[in-house]
Parts: sequence; structure tokens; C-alpha cells
Amino acid sequence: MERAAIYHQPFSAFAYGYDKETLHIKVRSKKDDIKEVVMIGADPYLHTKDGWQPENISLQKIATTEEHDYWMVAVKPEQRRLQYGFVLIDMAGEEVFYGGRGFYENTEDNRAVMDYYFKFPFLHESEVFKAPEWVKETIWYQIFPERFGNGNPDISPKNVLPWGSKDPGRDDFFGGDIAGIIEHLDYLVELGINGVYLTPIFEASTNHKYDTLNYFEIDPHFGDKETFRQFIQEAHKRGIKVMLDAVFNHIGDKSPEWQDVLKNGSKSEYVDWFHIHSFPVTPGENGNIEGKNTLSFDTFGYTMHMPKLNTANPAVQKYLLDIATYWVREFDIDGWRLDVANEVDHAFWKSFRKAVRAEKDDLYILGEIWHDSWLWLLGDEFDSVMNYPFTQTIIENYVEERITPSKMVSGISDQLMRYQEQVNHVMFNMLDSHDTARLLTRCDGDKDKAKLALAFMFAHTGSPCIYYGTEIGMDGADDPLCRKCMEWDETKQDKEMFSFMKHLIAFRKKHQQTLTYGDLVWHTVDDENRCVIFSRTYNGARLTFVFNQAEEAITLTKADFTDMSVLQDAWSEKALEEVTVPAKSFVTLED
Amino acid sequence: MERAAIYHQPFSAFAYGYDKETLHIKVRSKKDDIKEVVMIGADPYLHTKDGWQPENISLQKIATTEEHDYWMVAVKPEQRRLQYGFVLIDMAGEEVFYGGRGFYENTEDNRAVMDYYFKFPFLHESEVFKAPEWVKETIWYQIFPERFGNGNPDISPKNVLPWGSKDPGRDDFFGGDIAGIIEHLDYLVELGINGVYLTPIFEASTNHKYDTLNYFEIDPHFGDKETFRQFIQEAHKRGIKVMLDAVFNHIGDKSPEWQDVLKNGSKSEYVDWFHIHSFPVTPGENGNIEGKNTLSFDTFGYTMHMPKLNTANPAVQKYLLDIATYWVREFDIDGWRLDVANEVDHAFWKSFRKAVRAEKDDLYILGEIWHDSWLWLLGDEFDSVMNYPFTQTIIENYVEERITPSKMVSGISDQLMRYQEQVNHVMFNMLDSHDTARLLTRCDGDKDKAKLALAFMFAHTGSPCIYYGTEIGMDGADDPLCRKCMEWDETKQDKEMFSFMKHLIAFRKKHQQTLTYGDLVWHTVDDENRCVIFSRTYNGARLTFVFNQAEEAITLTKADFTDMSVLQDAWSEKALEEVTVPAKSFVTLED
Repeated sequence: MERAAIYHQPFSAFAYGYDKETLHIKVRSKKDDIKEVVMIGADPYLHTKDGWQPENISLQKIATTEEHDYWMVAVKPEQRRLQYGFVLIDMAGEEVFYGGRGFYENTEDNRAVMDYYFKFPFLHESEVFKAPEWVKETIWYQIFPERFGNGNPDISPKNVLPWGSKDPGRDDFFGGDIAGIIEHLDYLVELGINGVYLTPIFEASTNHKYDTLNYFEIDPHFGDKETFRQFIQEAHKRGIKVMLDAVFNHIGDKSPEWQDVLKNGSKSEYVDWFHIHSFPVTPGENGNIEGKNTLSFDTFGYTMHMPKLNTANPAVQKYLLDIATYWVREFDIDGWRLDVANEVDHAFWKSFRKAVRAEKDDLYILGEIWHDSWLWLLGDEFDSVMNYPFTQTIIENYVEERITPSKMVSGISDQLMRYQEQVNHVMFNMLDSHDTARLLTRCDGDKDKAKLALAFMFAHTGSPCIYYGTEIGMDGADDPLCRKCMEWDETKQDKEMFSFMKHLIAFRKKHQQTLTYGDLVWHTVDDENRCVIFSRTYNGARLTFVFNQAEEAITLTKADFTDMSVLQDAWSEKALEEVTVPAKSFVTLED
Repeated sequence: MERAAIYHQPFSAFAYGYDKETLHIKVRSKKDDIKEVVMIGADPYLHTKDGWQPENISLQKIATTEEHDYWMVAVKPEQRRLQYGFVLIDMAGEEVFYGGRGFYENTEDNRAVMDYYFKFPFLHESEVFKAPEWVKETIWYQIFPERFGNGNPDISPKNVLPWGSKDPGRDDFFGGDIAGIIEHLDYLVELGINGVYLTPIFEASTNHKYDTLNYFEIDPHFGDKETFRQFIQEAHKRGIKVMLDAVFNHIGDKSPEWQDVLKNGSKSEYVDWFHIHSFPVTPGENGNIEGKNTLSFDTFGYTMHMPKLNTANPAVQKYLLDIATYWVREFDIDGWRLDVANEVDHAFWKSFRKAVRAEKDDLYILGEIWHDSWLWLLGDEFDSVMNYPFTQTIIENYVEERITPSKMVSGISDQLMRYQEQVNHVMFNMLDSHDTARLLTRCDGDKDKAKLALAFMFAHTGSPCIYYGTEIGMDGADDPLCRKCMEWDETKQDKEMFSFMKHLIAFRKKHQQTLTYGDLVWHTVDDENRCVIFSRTYNGARLTFVFNQAEEAITLTKADFTDMSVLQDAWSEKALEEVTVPAKSFVTLED
């Protein structure tokens, strides 16, 4: 038995309240090393005259990665307290007791030592992670407002270029605005979208507006508050939720606060709003010269245009929380996406959650974090993060083909095991964004690859997000090329791609429960033929997916699906005698 | 290489801010499996024209347990951001890259993928765990006030028994009070004590007072507020800090709030102060009949006298926080020990810390938690917990002899690795308390054993606590026998034990820096002869401890200490040619 690989950690994704009465308890062991894991547990205070009488409950193996097996059990302790340990039995029958003080021989004497157990001291309903229900049913659409639609040319910047007249340069303006989004809401409805995420819309000098000048105003080139209010109303009328982008890690250098620091130096009343290491502050176009920092103040990524805010300062906290609540209270927005969320302190985000949730109790809070985010996802900060580790894993297999299907499956399982189950249900999944090259470009224009990756993402738990234009086959390399003007000329739109995406979205909605909650089982992971077969099962409904990534079609018969009596295509709803999966394509079966 | 055993977790005891500019980064691997661990890291945004240029820094092996080796490096990233991964090299020279997305072949291509790294996004000074400095210099003394001294017989309960006239029964009163503590403060000074922890002193019906009736009043049998104020002043005058016991998980059943519920049932205004599952509430002397709960409301451990408070209710929060701040503000207490802290919700404790620290910025917050407490020790809740897992490990070896010295050393290392280093510096270490049998009784009266365990505890980091009377050889089995009246008849006190404890305390104070911060190295762990040799080193000062647990003396010469030029006894300060450690005794060397 490889004891060094056995892992459990109380108060983590390995032991948490799933709902107000249920605990999830997990154990990790070396892959293929352990035959059985049994939990020994009961209320620590409940004794009979014969002493403490715990129950034995077997854990189920729920996931496997390249290195590990994961085991889980869900229990409902009557008094919401649990003292628990594990007996692990390996393939050779060797047994060990594992608890809060490590490994002990599995004897009655050792099992009687109360100190040797783990504890879940009390399941507080207030501590259970709970995200807004509506997110599970949401198909997101990300809009970069300067490039989606120009609905009001009167407010376009002076130097505006004709719509789509060229590939965007870093500082170009094409006149996209909020009226342009309103104009195209019915297009989104046709596609099936029920949530839009807008990158920043507050007053700022750049086209991307991540350098905020005034958080209380809509950028005048995007519109005014009345237009924004109308947008929210029209979106809500169509059942579409609206999420805005909160850039609270830093502010724009043209903001009055930073300008005051530049003007008054150490005498500025805003000195403590920033992280300034010495005076005079020394702005320079690029703070990173040959790998050396040249700035005397903290910024976002050495960009002197984005001085970092000191969110430990109560005045800054009040300023930002006033903004956060203002747009919820006055305009009824449905979500905040938090830019560079990982570089802001946790205490601020805890206050943020309290403040915005007091305004609207089902407001969605999404953090931009690209790495493991467990500490932000314990229930008192974010509802979710941008799930890059999950989507990167898909891209590395289906798009870049730099990893094997096995490595992808391992990566997906690993990612699912990092968070509480209810966190995974509302993860924000996307394959491209304003911060990456577009999916089709990453696929070198191979549409089949792009479709395979998108369909694969839709088959997993979490809320999928489509970056504007991906549904009509738009391409574009890294920023600024991934921010082209939306193509509204229907003759230039890829109609087949649009129809595919529409179908995918409808399918996701139809099977929302299964795709959100369904148990994930990998039936086949064939690296040689680059084919995976997996199913999602919930409440007796099962969807089975065959993803064939190879250059040749494969044909499967009932014999390949031992436990299925009928092969019914889930898209066409036709019964099949055999299943042919074309090259670089997929099939979904239902039973 | 045993990859399944390799572990790192961002934002945990494996990656944390040690101070405002230093990060500690740790990795765990299978014991004796890995030869070298190298961190590859740099600011994620700092690029030269040749791309991201991380540094390579080797980690040091800092601890070993039965199953694992632990590796650590301290780094000071200039911009307080770190992107990092590891290259691990095993004994056979096999290499692997390990990062936030798991294991990859250690190639230049893989090391260039920014997504494959771990991140420490930003080191916020406000998030660095910081406990009051004075705790590191504190020798605690725990007093059970009803049994320490009767200074004012006029306020003793009617049914008071003559002091020490019998072994205490569960409901006996002997008249101990606050005046009795004041009377003996100089005794504590003589012993060397500079911190006292009092179990509850607020109005309550029992002798232990964990069933609070009124948190705003001193129990009338213990004294009044003037006496208490005088006690604090006299203690402070002598350089003694005072910590009180906050029983906030539950309240006494005789409290007006619970009595109102009993009287008015579901119509009581205090219904939401508790966790009541159905009406009428059904008190019964014992809520646990033959392993079944019989109560319709939550309590502490099925004790109907202690109904559990609903700390998610803002009214309860306000009530308790008012109490917490009142005693700090009005009486200048120095610490709060939080009873049953693990069964109260984290949000409450975060508010608690903010409230009491606003009153006094070096107030010590100590949680009563017997198990792994990492989630309470991130810097925004407690400063420390009662370190039972550490002290139990000592007891299992030195007192019960149920484990080997090796297992003890493994347990100690494991415990030290669970928390941030600065948490370990202020852990509350004790070998007995009002909740356990007394040390001497656990040792079956073997004083040598007790002394060995005490000295061993004093040799480790953290603040030691002595349970009243242990210093004069008092004994007593589990509650209520561990709560005997303090023996003030000098002819009945164990003077030799007192002198030993006085010496131990003086030694701890003299070497406070080394014993708080000193690196711990185990030189010899001899299970057969039950002997361990270890050292603590800090700033060039080194203390070497030889603990001989065997029934026979051992003699060591310079040859047994290869790197020591002189053997100097740290207690007597005499140079020695050889070191003889008597049976069941210890020696401390200094160089």
C-alpha cells in the first residue's frame, strides 16, 4: 500500500457541506493501489454504555487521474456533527486505519482512540457554498462592446474607423456601443443565449476600457445611463441576464485620483489609495524594461496606465463597494465579473459579496482567475471563476493535440476534484475570450476541430460561454486581432456554424439537469485512435458521448455499449442499429 | 519516483506569506524518494525580449515523517507576485516538472507554458498571519477559579465545603474566588509565570461556569467587577497577562434567554437565538439515551443545560460581540480563549477578531480546537489553538508509551508542517487541563515521566501552559478529580517539583528566541533505547537536547556529537568531558 499517496484534508474539497444536511467526504489514493475505502464515523458525543458506536460506510471510486483514484461518500449526520476515520484495504488485502493523526494499525484499540479521528465539527447551513440557481441554466455570450454593433453613430469617437474596415490595431475605435447590443438582442435570442457578459463599459480612454476613469458613468462613446437601463430592460424582457466587468484591482491613470497623485505627490489625499514605494512617482510608458521593473508604484502587469488600488484602505473599499452596489441597485444587473480577481485581497472580496448580495440575493459573482482558485470558492467570496484549467486541457487535446486523450481525461478529473461539487455546477467554461486567440484560429481554421472542442465543453458540467462571433466562424489571433468587429453581413457569416451552435445550445438546455448534475463515467479512452466515450447520468436519464478525434470514421455497434439496450441518437432522436462517428466528429446517444 | 505522493497546494501551509515581503513555499514527497527539489519562479509579468526568465532555487529538506519528506524555500519576490513550478529529481536521477496542472516531462517546451505553473498572485501585507509578539514570551498558567484560592469566604456559596476537605464531586463548591487569585499572584511571579488563563468567571450556576447565565457579570461567588479590576491591575503590575474564557457556542439553560423559550415556546422573542427543531422543546437531564438523541434542540454534547446559540443570527452576533469587546474595553484583558470554537461558524469568528482587535490591537485569540485547525489559522480568525495533537503525541510516547519515539517524532513533524511557521510560534501547548486527567496521574505517579514530558514540551516552539498545581505535584483523574483544590499547605507541596518547574520556566525565558524560532533538527531517534537527541538553532545559538526515556542511564562523549567542540550543560553552564543522562531524564547542551 502506498501510504505516502493517501490524502484527506478536513475543511476542503475533501470534506464539505454539500447542502444543509449532507456532507461530502473524499479520499485520494495512488491509482489502482486500493481496493476498498470504508469510512468509520458518527457523532463524537453520541455514546452508548458500550462506548462510541460508529457506523461503517463504503466510499465509491468517483474519479481517476494519471496518478490517483478519488473516493467519495455522501452522509447526512443527524446532529450535523461527524467524527470520522477511514479503513483502507489494498489489492493484496493489507489494511490500515487513517485519521486526523495519520496512519495506525487497524486494531480495535486504535479505532477506540477518539483523538485519532478527523472531525467535521458542525455543518452550518450558512457555510454551505450556494450559487444562484439560474447560472446552471445559463448559456453565456461574451461581448466586447466596442466591436459588437454600432447602434448610435452620433456618439462614436472622432477617430472612428468604418465598421470592420480593417483588422483592429491596439488603439483603433470602430464605434461599437450599447445601442448596438440592444439592436442585436433578438439575434442572441435566436441563438439561444440567456446571459451576456460585457467587458467594461465605464468611462475610460481605451477601446477595452480596463483603465477606468469614472466607474459611475457609462463611457460616452458607449451610451448613457438611459440607454444602459433600456438595454437591461430589453435583455430581461427576453430572459437574458446581464453581467458587467468590475475592474477593481487597478484604476486608469487618467482617473482624477491618480492624476491628483501625479500633481501633488506625497501631499495628495489619494496617496494611500495606491501602492507607492517612493516619490516622485515615475511613470514610464513601459514599466518592464529588459526584465527589470522601472516603476516606483504598483500597477497591473507593469502597465503604467493601470496603477494598482490599495484595497486594504477603508476609503478605497467604500469607494469600490459603492460602485458595486450602485449598478446592482439602480440598474438591476445580474452579475459581476471581477477582473484580475486573484491580485485583490480576500477580505475585500468577502465584503464585496456581503454588499452586493444584500442588494440582490441571486447576484452571480465570477472571478477572473486562471489557476486553482479553491480559497476564493469556499462560499463567502465568489460563486465561480473563469475555468481556464479545464478549458485549456480540452484545447491541449482537441485543438493543439499536444497531449493525449488520457492526459486530457486526467486533467478534467483532477480539475473536478479540486472544488466542491456545487462549485463545479456553476463554473464559467469558455474556449476563447478577449484575452486569447480565437478558437478557430487556434484550430488553424479547422472548423471540425473547433466544433469538437465546443461540443465536448458543452457535454460537461458548468455554464458554457461563447465569445461573440465564434458562432459564425470568426477568427483572429491574439489581442488585438481577437477583437475584430462582429460580422453582421450574413453572406460573410458561417451559417452552418451558426446552426451547429444553435443546436448545441438547444441540446444543452434540453438536457440541462443531466449535463449539470450527471455523474461522469469514462467508458473508453483510446489514445491510439484518439477516441473517448463517456456518459453523464442523472435521475435515470443517461447521455453517452462518443468523440472521435481521428482522421477516420469509426463504427460502433450495440456490442460496444454493453449496458445499452437501444442506441438512440440524442440529437436526431432516431434509433440506430450501429453508430458511425465520422472523422473529427461526435455522436450523442440517449437511453 | 512516486509521483502520487508529491504534493503542493497554493494558499495553504504549503505557500503563504511569512511576512510582508517573504513567501514560504513547501513541497511534500514520499520519504527518501527525492534527491533534489528546485523551484523555477519569477514574477509572471516580467519578460525580457527572450521571454519569461525565471530563476532556479533549491529547496531545503526541513522535516521528515514516517511517510514523507518536506522541502521548503523562503523567497522575497520584488513585486510580491510569484509564478512558480518545481523540478523534482529522484534518487535514480529521474526528473519531472510539477506545477499547477500536474506533472509534465521536464522539457524546455513544457517549462515555457505559463499555464503549467502555480501562482502566488500577490502578497498582501494585510493577509499575513500575525499574532501578538508577547505571546512568544509567555509562560501560561491555567486556573480553575473555584479551586485555586478562597480569598473572600464571605461570598462563598452556602453549601461550600472546607478547602481541600475531600476529592471534588461533580457539583461540589469549595469557595475559590478572584480574591484568592490576587492573594497568590506573587506565588505565580516566583514560579516565573507571565500569563494566566482563567476558565469562565461569569455568572453561572455550576462550579465550572461553562453554563453562562449572564456574561456581563462576574459570578457573585467569585467576586465583583471591582475585585476583577483590581486583579487585572495587580496582574499587569507584575507583568502577567490575563486571558478569559468565552463560552459562545452555547449559553446556560438558566439564562433569561433560554428560560424565555421554555416559558413562551414558539412565541418567544428568543426562538431564533437557538437551533430548535420542534416545539414544545423537550429538555431532559441527559439528551443521549443509549446512543439516541432525545432533545428537540441543539446543545453542546447532548447536555440540556447548554443549549447551542445560533451565531448566524445577527442579534446573537451583536449580543456576543458586545460581551467580547466589553471586557477588553472596560477591564483591559489581554486574551480570549474560545470554548468549543470549532462548532461555531467561521463568519462569526471573523467578526469577533475584527471587533476585539479594534479595541486592543495585541489581544490574543485562542481557539479550543483539538484537531487540525488550519482553516481557523489563516490570519483572519484565531492566533492559535490549544495544541492537543502535538501534546497528545508527546503523551503517547513519554507517558503512555503506546507509540515509539520514531512515531512521536513523525507526529511532531507532521503537526509542525500543518501550519504556517509563524502560527507554530504562538501555539498553546499543554499536557493537562481541566478537561483531561492530570499529568502525574496519567504517569501513574511516576514523577520522572512527568518531568520528562514537561521538559520535552518546553524544548519546542509555542507557548507552554501549566495547569495549576502541576508544578507542586498535584494529581487527579478525569473530571471532576482533576479539579481538586490547590494545595497551599507547603508541607504537602512537592518542593522538588516546584523547583524543577521554576528552573524550566527560567530556562525557557532565557532561551526564548532559540526555543521560539530555532530550526529543529533530529540527530538521533533510537526506538530500542527510547532515546532522542535533537537541537534547536537560531542566530548562531544552539541548544542540543538528549532525552533518555529508558530505565538505564546512558553516557555520551564528544564523539557522539560530531559537530560540537565543547559539551556545555545549558542548565549548569558547566563544560563536560562526557554527558551522562540518568534513566528517565534529560540533558541540555549549549554551544
